[in-house]
Amino acid sequence: MKRRDFITGSAAAAGVGAMAIGSKSIAQNSGNRTWSMVTTWPRNFPGLGVGAQRLADRITQMSGGRLTVRVYSAGELVPALESLDAVIEGSAEMMHGAAYYWINRSRALSFFTGVPYGMTSREMAAWVRYMGGQEIWDDIYDQFGLKGFLSGDTGTQAAGWFPEELKSLDDIQGIRFRTPGLGGEVWSRLGASVVNLPAGEIYQALQSGALDAAEFVGPYNDLALGFHQIHKNYYFPSFIEPGLATECVVDKAKFEELPNDLQRIVELACQAEYDQVASDFYANDPIALQTLVNDHDVIVRQFPEDILEAGAGHAKDIIRELRDDSDPLTRRTTESFISSLNTLRQRTDVNDMAFLQARANYFDLTDL
Amino acid sequence: MKRRDFITGSAAAAGVGAMAIGSKSIAQNSGNRTWSMVTTWPRNFPGLGVGAQRLADRITQMSGGRLTVRVYSAGELVPALESLDAVIEGSAEMMHGAAYYWINRSRALSFFTGVPYGMTSREMAAWVRYMGGQEIWDDIYDQFGLKGFLSGDTGTQAAGWFPEELKSLDDIQGIRFRTPGLGGEVWSRLGASVVNLPAGEIYQALQSGALDAAEFVGPYNDLALGFHQIHKNYYFPSFIEPGLATECVVDKAKFEELPNDLQRIVELACQAEYDQVASDFYANDPIALQTLVNDHDVIVRQFPEDILEAGAGHAKDIIRELRDDSDPLTRRTTESFISSLNTLRQRTDVNDMAFLQARANYFDLTDL
Repeated sequence: MKRRDFITGSAAAAGVGAMAIGSKSIAQNSGNRTWSMVTTWPRNFPGLGVGAQRLADRITQMSGGRLTVRVYSAGELVPALESLDAVIEGSAEMMHGAAYYWINRSRALSFFTGVPYGMTSREMAAWVRYMGGQEIWDDIYDQFGLKGFLSGDTGTQAAGWFPEELKSLDDIQGIRFRTPGLGGEVWSRLGASVVNLPAGEIYQALQSGALDAAEFVGPYNDLALGFHQIHKNYYFPSFIEPGLATECVVDKAKFEELPNDLQRIVELACQAEYDQVASDFYANDPIALQTLVNDHDVIVRQFPEDILEAGAGHAKDIIRELRDDSDPLTRRTTESFISSLNTLRQRTDVNDMAFLQARANYFDLTDL
Repeated sequence: MKRRDFITGSAAAAGVGAMAIGSKSIAQNSGNRTWSMVTTWPRNFPGLGVGAQRLADRITQMSGGRLTVRVYSAGELVPALESLDAVIEGSAEMMHGAAYYWINRSRALSFFTGVPYGMTSREMAAWVRYMGGQEIWDDIYDQFGLKGFLSGDTGTQAAGWFPEELKSLDDIQGIRFRTPGLGGEVWSRLGASVVNLPAGEIYQALQSGALDAAEFVGPYNDLALGFHQIHKNYYFPSFIEPGLATECVVDKAKFEELPNDLQRIVELACQAEYDQVASDFYANDPIALQTLVNDHDVIVRQFPEDILEAGAGHAKDIIRELRDDSDPLTRRTTESFISSLNTLRQRTDVNDMAFLQARANYFDLTDL
């Protein structure tokens, strides 16, 4: 899920917003609270939009209705990429999105969504919850009167749809490839002609030839968008998105005015969702992948080693540039990220990676 | 963490329990509830015992004290391995432990903790939450008037401490190795002489030579127990414990009597803990591992391929035997596990494993 995907400013939505603010005032008069959650996702968008709605419902349920959260999907109250502003300006109490949408406010925010060759979803949570990540994130959002919580993760994404098998780095020179953010910067340095397009325009651009190739999220989302009807070469893994964490951001002053039980409910509902969304992707991605392979002749491929290696070099250059950024909080975030990842990966490599390799090599249940 | 590790039946504990039940009755008379949570862990046991206490505190906090949960560690109210019975018999409303402690009630329960060469923590949650695992688990515990929730996970564990480097399967023939449960069955079939000892007795047995080798959890727990003072060869990963999920089990009738908001608070506090405990291990295992390697000359090693391969063969035999078990629920659980893992691993392999391999090969930040 990417920046600018869901800019769908809508005049009609203004009316919905006004109505909502009206009903919120009534609810507050009765002693209960109704909060508005704006999101950067289309309504019912698999995994992430569904997760935002479920988070709102869970807060409402756990609070017994004392804190009712009403969700406004992208464009309903404000356009997707004005969601953070809506909370800063007070027209919503909370938002659900991805921190890297707001790098114009702080480049450091990229790290709380995920960066190329960076942390897996488990490593991200370990950094944020136990290695100082949350404290730095709080310092960044404090500048805007906000507080952020992890609220979901896609897990490692797919790397994209290509017209032909890629044999080497040469095969991506100049290709028009849809991918946003820091990942787009890596692909640009690799030699691709990087384009950013909203989700709803990718299929048409691939079909018309305006795009040669595109990456979006993974099988669960990509199947719904139909990219397999155009290209059959589906590449894994996305070395530029080893995890994509979503955030729930609250108006800090309003959050701190909540009684302690409601504060804990908001905070821990977000943490439960971090698990729920990842579970959703871990379960539904492979189910969708089976459909793509078995019913649509999609071929699962991995990049040639020279692309993986060159991509890692560019990713490292970008991390170095952020470490040397002019903004002190960006430097501090990057330093914490580097030192935490250097520690975390020692466990991930000897445990997770080595186990998965052994299981892939020796343990096959398909004939049971 | 293993069956029988914490059998520490205590006469003194009976007094504590009686006192607690007394104060619970008083609390219920005032309109609030106090529930007793018995656990299979020692108080303040890193990761798991701490997680049980935090879960209780979070339920208390989110409910604003309407549901106060009081924790009894192993032996305080009942011995560790009588915790499930305590809930069945009504002397506690909930327990925190591991489902595989109760295989004398159903062999199928092993799958909800984890089995050799089985699911990672992410795969386990995907199976339980989205692929029918919870429904089967509910059917198993329904027989006893219980309901279980996932409440934590250690992630892939370490494989154990050995006196010498292992060159082949020959080197483990007849060694006296401490490891419990189905993992112990795999090691027994591999040729080891398997011993089960409580946590507190392992160090002494290694020191006296009564044990040749031992596995427990991972660096975070093992460092505290001092095994590195005896052996320096620390093996990874534990192919017999690719994840170890803990459970919070409630008295189903009492749970269903709770108002809906408190039911959701219990359920979602467990889910938040599933993430919190994993984050704790992902952060603190590698920190402890750095200490073991840098300060105590511990050598991180991986098993020779013939041990990994033979272990996988025995693990598969055990899964087959459970699939053909005389108990219909065990057969049904095993069939669901096999088919879900066959689906899940397709994503894990092309995304998680392939990303970790690429990162290990090409992305090094240690010189930044």
